[in-house]
Amino acid sequence: MSKIEKVSPLAPVSFPDIPAIKGVNFSTASAGIKYQGRSDVMLVILDPGTEIAGVFTSSSTRSFAVIDCEEKIHLKDSSLGAAIVVNSGNANAFTGFRGKVSVEAITSAVSEVLNIPQSRVFSSSTGVIGEEMPHNLVIDVLNKMAADKSEHGIREAAEAIMTTDTYPKGSVIKVLTDEGEVTIAGIAKGSGMIAPNMATMLVYLFTDASIEKEVLQSYLSVINDKTFNSISVDGDTSTSDTVLIAATGKSGISIGKNQRNFSQGLTSLMTDLAHQVVRDGEGASKFVEINILNAKNKADAKTLAKSIANSPLVKTAIAGEDPNWGRIIMAIGKSGAHAERDKLKIFFGDILVAENGWVAPNYSEELGAQYMKNSKIIISVDLGLGRGSTTFWTCDFTSEYISINSDYRS
Amino acid sequence: MSKIEKVSPLAPVSFPDIPAIKGVNFSTASAGIKYQGRSDVMLVILDPGTEIAGVFTSSSTRSFAVIDCEEKIHLKDSSLGAAIVVNSGNANAFTGFRGKVSVEAITSAVSEVLNIPQSRVFSSSTGVIGEEMPHNLVIDVLNKMAADKSEHGIREAAEAIMTTDTYPKGSVIKVLTDEGEVTIAGIAKGSGMIAPNMATMLVYLFTDASIEKEVLQSYLSVINDKTFNSISVDGDTSTSDTVLIAATGKSGISIGKNQRNFSQGLTSLMTDLAHQVVRDGEGASKFVEINILNAKNKADAKTLAKSIANSPLVKTAIAGEDPNWGRIIMAIGKSGAHAERDKLKIFFGDILVAENGWVAPNYSEELGAQYMKNSKIIISVDLGLGRGSTTFWTCDFTSEYISINSDYRS
Repeated sequence: MSKIEKVSPLAPVSFPDIPAIKGVNFSTASAGIKYQGRSDVMLVILDPGTEIAGVFTSSSTRSFAVIDCEEKIHLKDSSLGAAIVVNSGNANAFTGFRGKVSVEAITSAVSEVLNIPQSRVFSSSTGVIGEEMPHNLVIDVLNKMAADKSEHGIREAAEAIMTTDTYPKGSVIKVLTDEGEVTIAGIAKGSGMIAPNMATMLVYLFTDASIEKEVLQSYLSVINDKTFNSISVDGDTSTSDTVLIAATGKSGISIGKNQRNFSQGLTSLMTDLAHQVVRDGEGASKFVEINILNAKNKADAKTLAKSIANSPLVKTAIAGEDPNWGRIIMAIGKSGAHAERDKLKIFFGDILVAENGWVAPNYSEELGAQYMKNSKIIISVDLGLGRGSTTFWTCDFTSEYISINSDYRS
Repeated sequence: MSKIEKVSPLAPVSFPDIPAIKGVNFSTASAGIKYQGRSDVMLVILDPGTEIAGVFTSSSTRSFAVIDCEEKIHLKDSSLGAAIVVNSGNANAFTGFRGKVSVEAITSAVSEVLNIPQSRVFSSSTGVIGEEMPHNLVIDVLNKMAADKSEHGIREAAEAIMTTDTYPKGSVIKVLTDEGEVTIAGIAKGSGMIAPNMATMLVYLFTDASIEKEVLQSYLSVINDKTFNSISVDGDTSTSDTVLIAATGKSGISIGKNQRNFSQGLTSLMTDLAHQVVRDGEGASKFVEINILNAKNKADAKTLAKSIANSPLVKTAIAGEDPNWGRIIMAIGKSGAHAERDKLKIFFGDILVAENGWVAPNYSEELGAQYMKNSKIIISVDLGLGRGSTTFWTCDFTSEYISINSDYRS
């Protein structure tokens, strides 16, 4: 970990100034699970009345913390408050029956300390897989954390959950409704192992709006699909991914189904956090947006976007600022989605690169090479077949990625 | 090309000593398509009576040479001989209608020069995608090539078709039948973009056995699935992959359906060539075998093997000699295949690493770390669910891969 001292060149200028969200308190501690000289536990205490919704990794080897959250997320009693406890340094994944023991020990202790039902204590763990979780280290710091809680600790919370992240990730947005203003804020972690269907990515979202549980879940699931499920760093998927949203209702303003301003605000916030995760992709030097237009259908559009985004040959070409559009053709061809060579068009930004089954007449290598020097690269592919469209985000693939991942545990 | 001066550390000691295959003549030339100071065209001339079978890339953006071969492979007239012409340096893929023009120009010229029907002239092109093929350069050398043909030019042929390959790939085996001995020999090229369902991989196999066309196709398709379709370098798939087998019949020995000795011999030869392709994976420092045992079914076994073999996190861990079995769990989990955490077992070679949902009692990091120093790594996963098994081969993922692929065209 100590090797990664420099912040990603694609990082935002600074962590945003996030105001308190009424009904949400944060606390962090240094439990010494793996890292030295930094915090590694975050506790979020949510006032009574808070509704919580979540989406989780689809991995068949997902960790017990995820299984535990999945079970609890369906319970409907919000009357006694809730809590979220997260540690970094150890994923508590693939640790056999001990995984369950650790999750139960931690959530039970949080329940005791905060006087909240254990069924309302959600936990996540992120870090190395397969090593026994020293859960007593977490339990030992809970009393002090409960005493130190603050409405203003969100940045520290974002820092406590980092693993190979090079910067803490946070975002905030205010949504104006007819009844007044609500705030949505969120934090995230994740850099390697990010892929569709969620990855070593933990995301916690908070709002002071009052939203019924089912409505909240519906907003989260729909928007998750076009934000956190539309990004990738290396195509790998973790055993621990979790996105939770908590609505405290403390603003007194209710948000119903399909409320466009709220939906847009939450989409914007989740898009921002998803981009921050990609921008911190291990070794990333370019932020890449892939637009698929007019594919046969929506499913084909996503298949094509993922095939391009996860192709090592496309990603290494971008790292080398090589406008190698032949590799995009290759990635389209191998995807299994419907494509007709002579109908498709490829663009770099606004530059038409290929059409009619060949290089475009006005395209030149110089134009392409110049475009590739940008730190944000937009690749668009128009299939000319139907109405399926999607946008997907990824980063390039540099030798830095290899060096980070070939000695992650040392 | 000039950057890659060193031979892969996983290369065989030397090119094998391959005897003449009766009825097969080779010739090579330096046409100057892209490379300087080396040969870049191979011509194989096959005697009348030769039967040919083939398998091809499944890419939807496959090159016209592949489409042309696919059409010709079904024709049944072997009476007038056949030819195979291959160039390196330009893939003639995604070159619009000009792709077709070039293939027709080349195959027509070969037909003229050799007095063979154009329908019996098979062509392949490998190299950069999307650049116009200078087919006249190939046509210009054909007369000289026809004049220079030799039964002993197979090594030179293997060299002429190389692109980023660091060594020529060849193999030979003799099969003893009740009627006498037949010989099978083959050459291959391919290093990046190798994935299941074929990749920038060209393979040409020759035998002096006498085999009916349908029988030959059946041997090739079945064995291809467990050899060239069971390897991967980067999970990418090319637009030009081709495996052709030519049976001249000149030994006078007939091979019928399901003849076990021939099938075993051809499997052994194709496995050897497939391994040589993986061992020349761009930047490869380790040869990796993945065995999946007792998966729910055969399809799940292959899905699991590919998920592990193509995971950048698994491949970078192997490059770093890190026995990071947590990443294997991750790759199993994300695959979509059926897996039960507590039933699966993971082995490094003979070392039991994980079982019962956790690290095995006798496993230690030291044991794993020691094993990872080998240049051949065998990872076995026993799912404990059914009877689906498969073996798959790949290589590790080093920063050398990134540097080769971030400036392939420069």
